Amino acid sequence: MSEVAALFEPDSVVLIGSSKIREKIGMTSPQLFENVIYNMKKYFDGKTYVLDIEGEKNYKKLEDLPETPELGVILLPPNASLPQSEKCAKTGVKALVAITGGYKNSQRQQLKDLRNEYGIRILGPNTIMGVINTTNGLNTTFEKDVMPPQGNISVVSQSGGVGACLLDWTCFYKIGVAKFAFMGDKIDVNDVDLLQYFNKDPETKVICLYMEGVENGREFIKMAQEVVKSKPILALKGGVTREAAQRALSHTASITGSDTVFNAAFKKAGIIRVKDEEELLNAAIALVNQPLLSGDNIAIVSNVGGPAILAADAVVKNGLKLATLSEKTKKEIERRYSGVDVVNPIDLIADARAERYSVVLDMVLSDPNVDGVMVINMLKSCFFEAEDAVAVVETAKRHPDKPVVDVPAGGEDFTLVYKVLQDTNIPTYNMPEKAAKALKALRMYHKITKKIKED
Amino acid sequence: MSEVAALFEPDSVVLIGSSKIREKIGMTSPQLFENVIYNMKKYFDGKTYVLDIEGEKNYKKLEDLPETPELGVILLPPNASLPQSEKCAKTGVKALVAITGGYKNSQRQQLKDLRNEYGIRILGPNTIMGVINTTNGLNTTFEKDVMPPQGNISVVSQSGGVGACLLDWTCFYKIGVAKFAFMGDKIDVNDVDLLQYFNKDPETKVICLYMEGVENGREFIKMAQEVVKSKPILALKGGVTREAAQRALSHTASITGSDTVFNAAFKKAGIIRVKDEEELLNAAIALVNQPLLSGDNIAIVSNVGGPAILAADAVVKNGLKLATLSEKTKKEIERRYSGVDVVNPIDLIADARAERYSVVLDMVLSDPNVDGVMVINMLKSCFFEAEDAVAVVETAKRHPDKPVVDVPAGGEDFTLVYKVLQDTNIPTYNMPEKAAKALKALRMYHKITKKIKED
Repeated sequence: MSEVAALFEPDSVVLIGSSKIREKIGMTSPQLFENVIYNMKKYFDGKTYVLDIEGEKNYKKLEDLPETPELGVILLPPNASLPQSEKCAKTGVKALVAITGGYKNSQRQQLKDLRNEYGIRILGPNTIMGVINTTNGLNTTFEKDVMPPQGNISVVSQSGGVGACLLDWTCFYKIGVAKFAFMGDKIDVNDVDLLQYFNKDPETKVICLYMEGVENGREFIKMAQEVVKSKPILALKGGVTREAAQRALSHTASITGSDTVFNAAFKKAGIIRVKDEEELLNAAIALVNQPLLSGDNIAIVSNVGGPAILAADAVVKNGLKLATLSEKTKKEIERRYSGVDVVNPIDLIADARAERYSVVLDMVLSDPNVDGVMVINMLKSCFFEAEDAVAVVETAKRHPDKPVVDVPAGGEDFTLVYKVLQDTNIPTYNMPEKAAKALKALRMYHKITKKIKED
Repeated sequence: MSEVAALFEPDSVVLIGSSKIREKIGMTSPQLFENVIYNMKKYFDGKTYVLDIEGEKNYKKLEDLPETPELGVILLPPNASLPQSEKCAKTGVKALVAITGGYKNSQRQQLKDLRNEYGIRILGPNTIMGVINTTNGLNTTFEKDVMPPQGNISVVSQSGGVGACLLDWTCFYKIGVAKFAFMGDKIDVNDVDLLQYFNKDPETKVICLYMEGVENGREFIKMAQEVVKSKPILALKGGVTREAAQRALSHTASITGSDTVFNAAFKKAGIIRVKDEEELLNAAIALVNQPLLSGDNIAIVSNVGGPAILAADAVVKNGLKLATLSEKTKKEIERRYSGVDVVNPIDLIADARAERYSVVLDMVLSDPNVDGVMVINMLKSCFFEAEDAVAVVETAKRHPDKPVVDVPAGGEDFTLVYKVLQDTNIPTYNMPEKAAKALKALRMYHKITKKIKED
């Protein structure tokens, strides 16, 4: 096992903290330490040791442990953390997660020296949340009971806050996750290391990045180019504007670089850039669950008129096209449903239930002029019931080469239909604009892989 | 009372439908009729008569009613609807809501003739959902128990579907609404009539429009110019792309006009244009609850770093600026919290609770260099508890001239903090990007009213 792998797949972990130290301003606190212990004991399949540098009940020194753990997680202020890190490095611990922040440059250098001298890999410091692996239950976050369901999205966040927001989102909407890694100040383990690890990780099928800056641009691009051959990478970049970039410098000690440079780098690397947290996860969900979009032509099948027009606008604004239905499809639909006006977007009329959706969606997905479908099925103002959405799942299954996304536009409507669809492979969005962006990601990754094959 | 007012404030209403007719493809059904009766009896403060053209239990003819109702709501297919509409017009009913669609041009002309001959005002046909007035409980929608809370946002939707989506959203998130009007084919009552009515309506403070097209552009602009002197108008336009515009033509018989023309018209009219349904309501919530933004300078007060950087990006992308804090503010904050790095965005660090937010927010809002504030208070990865958000409400109250919006970024985090803030005047958004757009709307309306005063 590589040392980076020890961050995610250790057989044994030591949690190093204090039951007494509380920083006046900072993250070290007995409660936080307790919470990490709680999560690890609740979720982790391996062995967890607790080392409390002040306590009596637990281990007090690393050398008291019956074995050398593979991973150390340190929840102490910089001054107390450094000697513990050194002990871990000398004892043969393979990797460290340095949770807390507030390190001075000289202290960061001390951590780097340990890495260079002993080979120990260090995530952080200032990672805040550390790592999550849903497969073995490793969870170094101090948020009690916060654990996303198992799945195939892996997230790398330079920021604890953005990562926590994404984690909260995946838990709340029950989005399947493989791994989370919070990089913090990344004095050692960085984007390149994590991309390399995720590239080989069988649980990871899509990688989401939040980044403020990279130091080793060329290496990063080269690694990304390798990864995107088999797994899409989505990136959200913070510090895009000059003003925010200055702030990022003090936030994670990142030189963010100009936005134009990043755009060019992402393009060269085959990374799909997104504009916000929601778009990031929405695109990831589509990429994990649906086939790629092999052409630009989208059909919209809806039980409402206005939202279908907004959907058509969104499809075109996102660089896709409204499919021109074949004469055969038009005739078949018209023959069966005389009241339905068969142009794309297709308005099935507000009384459409599962049967009408099944029949028309099947015809539309069989049409060679159609590459993918956005289904809109609202409940309010319509006869559609949430359970009818099962028809979308079943019909889409018969056309495994064309992506289908679903939009029960609204608040409660979304919630009710989402309950029916969340455990299926049909991505569900609360507005047509969000679904169009997800389809765009499916199209972009298709183009990226096609280009790689041609090169 | 004007005839348009009779659409919203009738003393008495007759619901005209059928307990037997069910359209094969279309909205007429006994169940739908039952649902409208149910809603009206449940919510409406005035008198509701039920006229069932086939039934035995209710009134069968308009002339059997003990009085002439002020408003008629017709839920019948075009053929059956026209004679009933004529009877209403002749009897002196002031206004009609024509729920169902499927009218041919000749049938639409017959409705227009009634309007011209008898002065009856007609909303629709194809309005689908009709009208809602939260003050008197008028609710002609067939969605049982769907009634938003009372408030000051009024919505005019040309599309039943988009209107239903917005209605669903307001109910789900408990957003205060004054009136809803679904225009449908607008053969008579149109945007201009409704703007005129809402301009005088004391319950309406912000107007949201969804539109696909207008016929009487000049009149519309003139009326909007009058309205925006005292009430902001937000508009979402469907049929922006050529492809979707073609569809809008068959959807609501609208000639949408080129997008450039609409942009110019909105600008001339002082209407704030938004890009999607969520942005529409998010901006409306801010405009109803917060003072306008009298300058461009935004301070961001956050307990997380990365989301604050995304917030800074979003602020700048939306044409606003990051405020440069005064030396006085910097020194005061630094004196009190030595660990806090006082540049904007201000990172209060993850252990900030209510007290630190109160103190810093108060200092920032007192700073003459700051025109408005985006507060970010995440729970995950932080010590902040949902109840701490009360501090934001109380501090903002002491600075009634500067807008404050709140961002508990994420899924569950948003839901928990929203529960605390939803009945206060602090608008709450699940991502910084959405909050920045709401601040932009507060800035835009300030500029619009300032320009009007200067002209």
